[in-house]
Amino acid sequence: MAVYNVSLIGFGGVNRALVSLIRNYNDEWMKKLGFRLNIVGVSDLHLGSLISPNGVDAEELLKIKMEKGGLASLDGGCPDPRSMEVIRQAPADIIVEATFTDPKTAEPAISYCRTAFEAGRSVVTTNKGPVALAARELIKLAQQKNVGFEYEGAVMSGTPVIRLAKKSMAGADITGFQGILNGTSNYVVGRMEMGLSFNEAVAEAQEKGFAEANPAADVEGLDIRLKVVILANEILGANLKPDDVSCSGILGLTPADLEDAVSHGERWKLIGSAEKDEDGFVSAQVKASRLPSSHPLASISGATNAVTFSTELLGDVTVTGPGAGRIETAYALLSDIITLHHDRCSFTEKGDAE
Amino acid sequence: MAVYNVSLIGFGGVNRALVSLIRNYNDEWMKKLGFRLNIVGVSDLHLGSLISPNGVDAEELLKIKMEKGGLASLDGGCPDPRSMEVIRQAPADIIVEATFTDPKTAEPAISYCRTAFEAGRSVVTTNKGPVALAARELIKLAQQKNVGFEYEGAVMSGTPVIRLAKKSMAGADITGFQGILNGTSNYVVGRMEMGLSFNEAVAEAQEKGFAEANPAADVEGLDIRLKVVILANEILGANLKPDDVSCSGILGLTPADLEDAVSHGERWKLIGSAEKDEDGFVSAQVKASRLPSSHPLASISGATNAVTFSTELLGDVTVTGPGAGRIETAYALLSDIITLHHDRCSFTEKGDAE
Repeated sequence: MAVYNVSLIGFGGVNRALVSLIRNYNDEWMKKLGFRLNIVGVSDLHLGSLISPNGVDAEELLKIKMEKGGLASLDGGCPDPRSMEVIRQAPADIIVEATFTDPKTAEPAISYCRTAFEAGRSVVTTNKGPVALAARELIKLAQQKNVGFEYEGAVMSGTPVIRLAKKSMAGADITGFQGILNGTSNYVVGRMEMGLSFNEAVAEAQEKGFAEANPAADVEGLDIRLKVVILANEILGANLKPDDVSCSGILGLTPADLEDAVSHGERWKLIGSAEKDEDGFVSAQVKASRLPSSHPLASISGATNAVTFSTELLGDVTVTGPGAGRIETAYALLSDIITLHHDRCSFTEKGDAE
Repeated sequence: MAVYNVSLIGFGGVNRALVSLIRNYNDEWMKKLGFRLNIVGVSDLHLGSLISPNGVDAEELLKIKMEKGGLASLDGGCPDPRSMEVIRQAPADIIVEATFTDPKTAEPAISYCRTAFEAGRSVVTTNKGPVALAARELIKLAQQKNVGFEYEGAVMSGTPVIRLAKKSMAGADITGFQGILNGTSNYVVGRMEMGLSFNEAVAEAQEKGFAEANPAADVEGLDIRLKVVILANEILGANLKPDDVSCSGILGLTPADLEDAVSHGERWKLIGSAEKDEDGFVSAQVKASRLPSSHPLASISGATNAVTFSTELLGDVTVTGPGAGRIETAYALLSDIITLHHDRCSFTEKGDAE
């Protein structure tokens, strides 16, 4: 049994969902998973910050007003965002990083991770930026400091893609992958197949709440590109940067293209993929592709995501699940913490038993 | 780095495939996975047995004549099957059990597992029998003896279903599952949709080599039932026996049923499923079901298998992959050994570091 102190960096939808899980499930986690979480720090650009060495009540935290400086209403709260101070000074075992993704620099998230590791704290994050742009450096630093770094939620929210490939499929020799890694663009293509125009389909996705006000990163493939970089580096051992991945989106797809495919029983999908050749060289791309109906990704519709891994020993294995959602992404953070817990138990509980 | 001594009980297609993997990949495993395998015992009802404390060369073992008593041609070989003696006396760390499944008694496989544990040896198996009929007892005995017991290959060959659900989705609160868990019956239904009669479709599956000479267990749902019992007990915490699972196969499906579904864009599938209610009671069944085309299992065709897990926190997650195959099932054994290796490393290498 353990209690982990956590500091939440960013208090948007995902970290608020995590706090609601803590409120609802903490006692159950203690019984079923062997730990509970205690929130000792929060920082958010808009809401301000909080340091509470003994822990703040999850229910109280969820009740604050979602207005500028709203965290100041709690004991230990302050109207200014002081992320670095919270990371350094609140007595957290784990920093839960869920701030926005800057696709060019991945800052300030990279600095948050570095600062956490330097302070001897583990990091779990749902942020694609630091994982896509600085995973090698950050993994190395975490190892040097003997802390954990987990980021399942950077790809397909809580659907266990990275952990499936690296752990459950270890030794199967993964040689490549193809994925539907962005729900908005997949939804838009699916609706265009049914006769909507591009603009109508985007507007519908926005109404349903899963397309951004500016859907450019989704429909141009840039969001997928970051995820392809993460999976290629993590699973195929590549060292790609986003610019190494050729990238086109769905803007070139015409109603006639879609109609022609459907009339042949085929489907257009925006696919992010990477492949390792015999010399170990990894090439990767994001591209709209016409798939035969027998392809495991052809039937993935709506906002669902999926990745097919090609392997030497096991053929193709596909995992399909939610690619977004606040609770689903908060679950990714929980799954990361479970991994940290198991790694720690391997260290401390079993000891030198053999 | 480690060397694991293994004894192979049963030397049919799956364990022979494992030996070919050992021949081809042992050096690579040492580098990438941190261990190699050394074969110190073999026993097979037909081929005889072998005890070789220093290890038998994989290539030599693959060259024996596949005839009665064929193992006698090797040093330490003998024309008689002596499984219990091999399990007890060959100095194996791990017993690799891949004998036939007796769906009524699961013997002699259960006795092989018990004997291995009593002798202080871990077991990996692809055999549904002992896992479906005696998992609780065997897990308890393995724990008492401080050895491992892994059986990923009992469901969907090497496709990581059990490990995905138990490890990668820990904490997501799995409340039920639905699966296409038998390739032969799924293939037959798919071909009947295309106009073949039941008998024609079965004959075709037999020609292609994945239906048994007697396909009763496949088309009556009995093979699926054992897998449903395994998943329900393992993942939903049930304590079901096969007779607790209502079971019907595809024999009642008529061409008219299939045609009617297809004309409505729907598909008939033989589904194994289980569900946990709010009181924790688990009900399970095997039954042909008519699925809407949007259902994640509707598009699973041919001999491919798939399971959809329903969860509280993550919605539905589906894993799709091979459900059979010699290499694919041998990979399941490798993945089990990787798990044993990691568990052992947690014990011995990290020590009491914190």
